[in-house]
Amino acid sequence: MSSPVTRPSGLPKQMRASVLSAPGSVSVESRPTPSPAADEVLVRVGSVGVCGSDVHYYQHGRIGDFVVESPLVLGHEAGGAIVQVGSAVEASRVGERVSIEPQRPRGDSAETLAGHYNLDPAMEFYATPPIDGAFAEYVLIQSHFAHRVPDSVSNDAAALMEPLSVGIHAARKAGITAGSRVLITGAGPIGVICAQVARAFGALEVVVSDLSEVRRAQALRLGATQALDPRVDPIESLGVDAFIEASGAAPAIRQGLAALRPAGTAVLVGMGADDPALPVHLIQNKELLVTGVFRYTNTWPLAIALVESGAVDLDSLVTGRFALDEVEAALSESTRESSLKTIVEPGRLSDS
Amino acid sequence: MSSPVTRPSGLPKQMRASVLSAPGSVSVESRPTPSPAADEVLVRVGSVGVCGSDVHYYQHGRIGDFVVESPLVLGHEAGGAIVQVGSAVEASRVGERVSIEPQRPRGDSAETLAGHYNLDPAMEFYATPPIDGAFAEYVLIQSHFAHRVPDSVSNDAAALMEPLSVGIHAARKAGITAGSRVLITGAGPIGVICAQVARAFGALEVVVSDLSEVRRAQALRLGATQALDPRVDPIESLGVDAFIEASGAAPAIRQGLAALRPAGTAVLVGMGADDPALPVHLIQNKELLVTGVFRYTNTWPLAIALVESGAVDLDSLVTGRFALDEVEAALSESTRESSLKTIVEPGRLSDS
Amino acid sequence: MSSPVTRPSGLPKQMRASVLSAPGSVSVESRPTPSPAADEVLVRVGSVGVCGSDVHYYQHGRIGDFVVESPLVLGHEAGGAIVQVGSAVEASRVGERVSIEPQRPRGDSAETLAGHYNLDPAMEFYATPPIDGAFAEYVLIQSHFAHRVPDSVSNDAAALMEPLSVGIHAARKAGITAGSRVLITGAGPIGVICAQVARAFGALEVVVSDLSEVRRAQALRLGATQALDPRVDPIESLGVDAFIEASGAAPAIRQGLAALRPAGTAVLVGMGADDPALPVHLIQNKELLVTGVFRYTNTWPLAIALVESGAVDLDSLVTGRFALDEVEAALSESTRESSLKTIVEPGRLSDS
Amino acid sequence: MSSPVTRPSGLPKQMRASVLSAPGSVSVESRPTPSPAADEVLVRVGSVGVCGSDVHYYQHGRIGDFVVESPLVLGHEAGGAIVQVGSAVEASRVGERVSIEPQRPRGDSAETLAGHYNLDPAMEFYATPPIDGAFAEYVLIQSHFAHRVPDSVSNDAAALMEPLSVGIHAARKAGITAGSRVLITGAGPIGVICAQVARAFGALEVVVSDLSEVRRAQALRLGATQALDPRVDPIESLGVDAFIEASGAAPAIRQGLAALRPAGTAVLVGMGADDPALPVHLIQNKELLVTGVFRYTNTWPLAIALVESGAVDLDSLVTGRFALDEVEAALSESTRESSLKTIVEPGRLSDS
Repeated sequence: MSSPVTRPSGLPKQMRASVLSAPGSVSVESRPTPSPAADEVLVRVGSVGVCGSDVHYYQHGRIGDFVVESPLVLGHEAGGAIVQVGSAVEASRVGERVSIEPQRPRGDSAETLAGHYNLDPAMEFYATPPIDGAFAEYVLIQSHFAHRVPDSVSNDAAALMEPLSVGIHAARKAGITAGSRVLITGAGPIGVICAQVARAFGALEVVVSDLSEVRRAQALRLGATQALDPRVDPIESLGVDAFIEASGAAPAIRQGLAALRPAGTAVLVGMGADDPALPVHLIQNKELLVTGVFRYTNTWPLAIALVESGAVDLDSLVTGRFALDEVEAALSESTRESSLKTIVEPGRLSDS
Repeated sequence: MSSPVTRPSGLPKQMRASVLSAPGSVSVESRPTPSPAADEVLVRVGSVGVCGSDVHYYQHGRIGDFVVESPLVLGHEAGGAIVQVGSAVEASRVGERVSIEPQRPRGDSAETLAGHYNLDPAMEFYATPPIDGAFAEYVLIQSHFAHRVPDSVSNDAAALMEPLSVGIHAARKAGITAGSRVLITGAGPIGVICAQVARAFGALEVVVSDLSEVRRAQALRLGATQALDPRVDPIESLGVDAFIEASGAAPAIRQGLAALRPAGTAVLVGMGADDPALPVHLIQNKELLVTGVFRYTNTWPLAIALVESGAVDLDSLVTGRFALDEVEAALSESTRESSLKTIVEPGRLSDS
Repeated sequence: MSSPVTRPSGLPKQMRASVLSAPGSVSVESRPTPSPAADEVLVRVGSVGVCGSDVHYYQHGRIGDFVVESPLVLGHEAGGAIVQVGSAVEASRVGERVSIEPQRPRGDSAETLAGHYNLDPAMEFYATPPIDGAFAEYVLIQSHFAHRVPDSVSNDAAALMEPLSVGIHAARKAGITAGSRVLITGAGPIGVICAQVARAFGALEVVVSDLSEVRRAQALRLGATQALDPRVDPIESLGVDAFIEASGAAPAIRQGLAALRPAGTAVLVGMGADDPALPVHLIQNKELLVTGVFRYTNTWPLAIALVESGAVDLDSLVTGRFALDEVEAALSESTRESSLKTIVEPGRLSDS
Repeated sequence: MSSPVTRPSGLPKQMRASVLSAPGSVSVESRPTPSPAADEVLVRVGSVGVCGSDVHYYQHGRIGDFVVESPLVLGHEAGGAIVQVGSAVEASRVGERVSIEPQRPRGDSAETLAGHYNLDPAMEFYATPPIDGAFAEYVLIQSHFAHRVPDSVSNDAAALMEPLSVGIHAARKAGITAGSRVLITGAGPIGVICAQVARAFGALEVVVSDLSEVRRAQALRLGATQALDPRVDPIESLGVDAFIEASGAAPAIRQGLAALRPAGTAVLVGMGADDPALPVHLIQNKELLVTGVFRYTNTWPLAIALVESGAVDLDSLVTGRFALDEVEAALSESTRESSLKTIVEPGRLSDS
């Protein structure tokens, strides 16, 4: 639905976007700059974080039941500045720096009305077929999902509020609170963010396990109080209150369930093999609570407050930076062992 | 620790008990009638229900890590009458008809103090090696775990408060409430009890699935609003709020998780293969809550109230009745398809 | 915002509505039949229940900070049939019999997104100044708040889903579950509905207190297991799990708090004097949970299911029935001691 | 019940205790050093904090229904070292430095089994008539309520784990979590401790209000992020998530309820006038949760961890220090405006 809003002078009619046309094939295209519907804003994208799911779509053209059947713009971790607003949005928002919550649930579904809009079956989500994402100069989002960030928050941090939201959602479901003892399996970007979030929720012991020594060292610099090697360290006897699985590896799930104290909680965040063998007798004998997260709900205000207060440091996660015409390099960089967060800057010219 | 309590006149010095000496070998022995410690009562056992775990110990001599290494009295679902009390118990309790909560947690463990005494690692539980159970004429139990039952409650029902407690604990963990739509997989005694409990918690739809037509028919008579065949009926599309697994079968777990609505809860009660393959992507994409039960905590007052009020009918579950010297026949009877609850009456003489 | 929807043939351009122009002054006026916006439906009103708040606006012209400053249509408990739909609503809904959830929260407020849309500060609610209510032949409501009712549910019951929703919301907040012992102070319509709801949630003891013998007798017919006189019966020693205050009387609040067991929950529903003196030491020494309800959220599906299943009987609450030009008589009738629910039928001609 | 434990050599047969014989009358007496029962330990008291309730018993001889009818030893915030153990306690505990949880609930009450042993009606609590407290050289406590403290924790801090436990219990009930905005009314010792606890639970804004400028300045040094004067600052418009009332003043309760956001939580900790007038309409219109605390349950492990980790600083709260024969001076000192925590050291000789 087109908006009656006047096109601001200076806003180009065409923009550049990085488009995935087939597995392994990404290229920059020129597309019409979109116009905001009444309740939307148009954001000039400053930074976009690369997520494992972007890499997966790029490599395989699908994630589970979500299949890329027509050209798709990837990228769903985005921050930038509002350049145009829809007719129902206050004009004063133009110029605001924002972090984008990249989802559009239906307002009238039972799930949304019950407070978990992330589970709305009619959800439209950035970079999830057939909805385009943020590897583009401009994107649209509903006004209330363009969350204002203070000046002290960088564009990168604004973009990384999205994976931080995953960590917050996981920490809430894990029931992490003052004094919690927490195990996080997997020291990738989500694991490291979860470690910082756990600390911000009051956890005093945050044990991160990873097969990679490089990643264990990173985790210790970025939130973990202890980093263990799951092949040799006695993780099963930790007796932690909460376990966040952030590796997707079946052995990690089993190890973490063993490591929980009675009545402890496991939150499965990492995506991996579909049907791992799980120790039901542990779930029963210890009355464990096992759950998973699907994105997040109502996390942005807290995410921004945690970054603004310094309780969480997102800028230190950035290990690479690329222009829009370097998206393939950015996706490739994201798979390196020591990579945490790779940033794409749609407004930047590549060095080439 | 022996008690200074005077032995009441008429209480025999020796009693009969059914003892499991080796897998497949049970016989009645004469043992000294025990004396209550200060905080205990001595109960003359009226009825004992046979549980699947009794059958399992009888057949295999172990359940998981619990191994029968010395002669063991089976039976942990017991009702009867108090015939003697310890020094710290009010004498007026003698003569009271009671249902036994067959556990003895430590009072000072972190688990007990936190309100889940069932998870106390030092728990002593009837008929769990090396603690003797209730296939005997008399048993001891702490006074506060001998729960008074009203006259309207039969000895059988007093005994079956124990499996009813399993159902109550499961229903609480499943969050069943008014209007809940519930799936129960497995129409054995626990499944059927869970169906009744779900109704008492306000569930309006209680779907029970079982491979056996006989059992499905029983379930419909005893609480279920619908009975389905998991091989042919479209269970996965039910969209239930709560799922109680009471079969121990891995396919049932998977089917039940598929049947849950977003943010639904699964409670795994049935014991089966150790490490079934579970659909983690469903737990994540629907943010399911998966947990298990290990016995129960704080269930007896509600169990008794539900039976007294007529909300739950336990007497109709009894499908067999045996004397103490017929325990092997009772254990065998319990494995018949149409069997629900087999009762052993330690005070009854066998017909032979 | 006007809708492009074509006016169905047969739908009158003008309708009758009962308008409160000043305290004590209500008259039937002719008004344009409204047209649904894109997400709305137009409902021909079958039955409207009279609520105490309608009477209060009629008598005093205000409730707290809500002041009637321009002519207002009262009535917010309404059922009827959809006669026209907005452009974004499926045409097949025309003809559906529905119960109206008479609120319109903003979809993008923090409160709505957190799952308690009833607390949205920008809420528009029927019959609350300046929003018109349902004492009219036709009303508009957003499509998803026009809840389909089955054929077995009468128009009166469809209307009374609204006060039933108050009772459901209160029961949820009170944590009523199987076996709960509940005290309800006040045997007016809300008290009696709460009694039925408490039963549907599994409460086994539902004690209702009221000064009026007539009302106590009604309560016993309609859900209560016991009815007490607060002047003579020992309510303070009940030791109930949950207390729902439905009278608005300060002494009832104090009596109910005294009647709660340790860690019990009080839900204050009745509206009365602004600042009653409350026993803070009881809230502290027993660690009571005290809360209130403001309308309801996500209650209609359960309300309809409870009525359809027979767990709650709304039709028996109707003690009077009036035409649209008899609204003043209906409001007056509602204040009689034995009155429970008075119904206004906008489509009915008065006998006069 | 006397213990068969042999008296260790060097343990004196008589000890000194400060005894309240009548309101305003305290003196040091010689009493037999008590002997531990089987499950108890004997603790040589190092530090005892003075609590407002000690002052209240000293001044008025009663707190509500608790009346001092025979000589009473005051003091219930105590740390020290185990010098003797009962027969059921590991001998290796002798010499351990401990913080005392000064309560003795019954292990078999419904409240204890449900996880809130603080609400056990048969509770025996230090310095609450007729149970003696810790203004004495030696005290008895059940072994599991003598919580080991690490070397880094001072005797004073060991004693002050008790008021810290009040703060932890309040923070838990208040639902304080990462990013919470919290209002605490009253900057006395409990208010200041609550401020530190709120920070440890992840609160980012902790507003403390107090009439006293001296106390507001103290609060800012000890945990508050903002200190307000309730007479002039716009507290009602704060919109906080949680409100902890720690002054006992009725106007503070009302102001705090006004300051809460919709669905916020109030925890009433301060003890004051019995029946303040409370704004029920705010509890209803905002669906506030209002509760109170009665001591604490399961708080010591967290209290010790918070102090050991440095998240909470108790030593800085100490503003006075007295010997056992100076208890009256200590009680008097506690009422000074700038006083936070006054310590009595039973083992110290006074300067006089």
